[in-house]
Amino acid sequence: MNDSPHLTFDLDKAGVSRGYLVVPKGADCEALSLPVCSISKGEGPRLLITGGCHGNELEGPIVARRLIKWLPEAQTCGRTIIVPELNPLALQAWTRNTPVDGKNLNRVFPGRADGSVTERIADAVSRVLLPMADTVFDLHSFSPTWDFPPAVITHPIADAELMAKTLKIAEAFKLPVTLLWEYYDTPGMFDLTAHEQGKVFICTEFGGGTVGAEDLAIYEAGVRNAFIALGLVQGEAKHPIFQRQESSQTLETLSSDILTSPARGIFEPRCSILDEVKQGDLIGLLHPMDSLSAGSIDICAPTTSIVCAIRSGLHVEADEEIVYLARPLKL
Amino acid sequence: MNDSPHLTFDLDKAGVSRGYLVVPKGADCEALSLPVCSISKGEGPRLLITGGCHGNELEGPIVARRLIKWLPEAQTCGRTIIVPELNPLALQAWTRNTPVDGKNLNRVFPGRADGSVTERIADAVSRVLLPMADTVFDLHSFSPTWDFPPAVITHPIADAELMAKTLKIAEAFKLPVTLLWEYYDTPGMFDLTAHEQGKVFICTEFGGGTVGAEDLAIYEAGVRNAFIALGLVQGEAKHPIFQRQESSQTLETLSSDILTSPARGIFEPRCSILDEVKQGDLIGLLHPMDSLSAGSIDICAPTTSIVCAIRSGLHVEADEEIVYLARPLKL
Repeated sequence: MNDSPHLTFDLDKAGVSRGYLVVPKGADCEALSLPVCSISKGEGPRLLITGGCHGNELEGPIVARRLIKWLPEAQTCGRTIIVPELNPLALQAWTRNTPVDGKNLNRVFPGRADGSVTERIADAVSRVLLPMADTVFDLHSFSPTWDFPPAVITHPIADAELMAKTLKIAEAFKLPVTLLWEYYDTPGMFDLTAHEQGKVFICTEFGGGTVGAEDLAIYEAGVRNAFIALGLVQGEAKHPIFQRQESSQTLETLSSDILTSPARGIFEPRCSILDEVKQGDLIGLLHPMDSLSAGSIDICAPTTSIVCAIRSGLHVEADEEIVYLARPLKL
Repeated sequence: MNDSPHLTFDLDKAGVSRGYLVVPKGADCEALSLPVCSISKGEGPRLLITGGCHGNELEGPIVARRLIKWLPEAQTCGRTIIVPELNPLALQAWTRNTPVDGKNLNRVFPGRADGSVTERIADAVSRVLLPMADTVFDLHSFSPTWDFPPAVITHPIADAELMAKTLKIAEAFKLPVTLLWEYYDTPGMFDLTAHEQGKVFICTEFGGGTVGAEDLAIYEAGVRNAFIALGLVQGEAKHPIFQRQESSQTLETLSSDILTSPARGIFEPRCSILDEVKQGDLIGLLHPMDSLSAGSIDICAPTTSIVCAIRSGLHVEADEEIVYLARPLKL
């Protein structure tokens, strides 16, 4: 019996190989076997694609499964390792966090070999898979109660060279938005561990609201564009069509660009994602729910900006985030 | 003290009046006061608009509040009574059903004066408000885990004259879809009580997925078109723009048009709402979640039809509804 995390197959074998990443058993549950597909075509870039970090974000697992269908034929060099479902326990339970230990996989990296199951998954990924790749695409989804464009998100990285390299690959997806998000990374995020190992880490955040056939097609086209940019696949990158347009923009969101609800009530959005707003423009209304005579509260743009994400017309609590504004990134 | 449901103000007063519909207290909770706005401009059609029957469907309350802003000036005759939030207890709790008694307001009509609070709300609406109107617009929302076009839904009505009158007003909204849905009405639905009183009952079902500014604008434009058709407001009806098109179609969905999931897993939508599909066309895939090698299951169109509603790319249980097909209505 092997008590260390390991792969059940030889990733270096030429062609397509399938097997499992084994996460050893612990006090809280039995060993897990995460399905892994590897496509090896000799020398070249080494890419790791992960989906299903959170069990309620399904664009990633769906798109990863699609890649497994066409990539074996399309890939001409290098190696791609695909793990569609990083956290099968959360996926089976349809929850963001792992039900066994209540932990968020994206907050426990690099994990612990002797930890609870979520920490053991992170440990297996950090020690077995991450060293085998130079670049990671981690496929996430935005919240279903927000409207959000297909986007690649990256956070500021202290290492200027890695930051530039990351932004370049992020933009190669040619998605409607590449977002540099000033977000104070919480300890335990996957990207921090990847950065520590010197890897380019790309987080796609798709969806928000309905996950439809068109969203999935955009998602897949973006990933294909990145494959082409990396040189793993031959072909011409194409702008996916979003809101009937072919366009990409690189934006920046600062912490001060996030607007919160002034009270508990119903949020009424008055603008749409990618709308440009000027200072004072109405972004939405907050309706108190107790009386028709209690006036609604206007929520206005504090500065000229682009609406990057906006809550659906739904209940919100006081101080809940309702809008992310952004502006063109100037480096 | 008045132990019967009643209004706190005189609806017949000319102009705009505001007050409350009082739902008497019972064993389970104190009396409720539902905000009501009435716009009386003399002789003419008598319309009742209700929103917030279900506490998790907020397009209705938002649009009803918008109407209260512009209708007082725009309405030229007749009377409109607006109750944006039929079930304030469910809205406050952000739940479909009333938390106090766990009941679905749209399953307890005509209600009971000596019943639990949800039944008392239905009783107040049935006995106080409904007799004061000839036509009812009940503003609902479709599920957030589906993609669904802005639509007016009606079920088959045995009374042919009422059916024809209802369809005519439904089509006057000029929304992308007017849907005649073969649905075996569950006892206790609001429309059954309205039909028993000989009223035209129109149910709008908007949204599904993200409720954005554009959806709300379409919703409001549809209601405005219906006001014009009824003669309450002067002006020209305009097709709201949906998916960058101006179009309306009247469709029919039979019980046999509802496809369900063949297994538990992840549903991957492969077509979009209002797509036309031919027999055998791929509508979506069902992915089992336990293994990458377990094949996905194709879900194909059983007959030439139009996709009226489709589940988001999300987890589904076996036998859960995933697609509503439809076809042009032939009367």
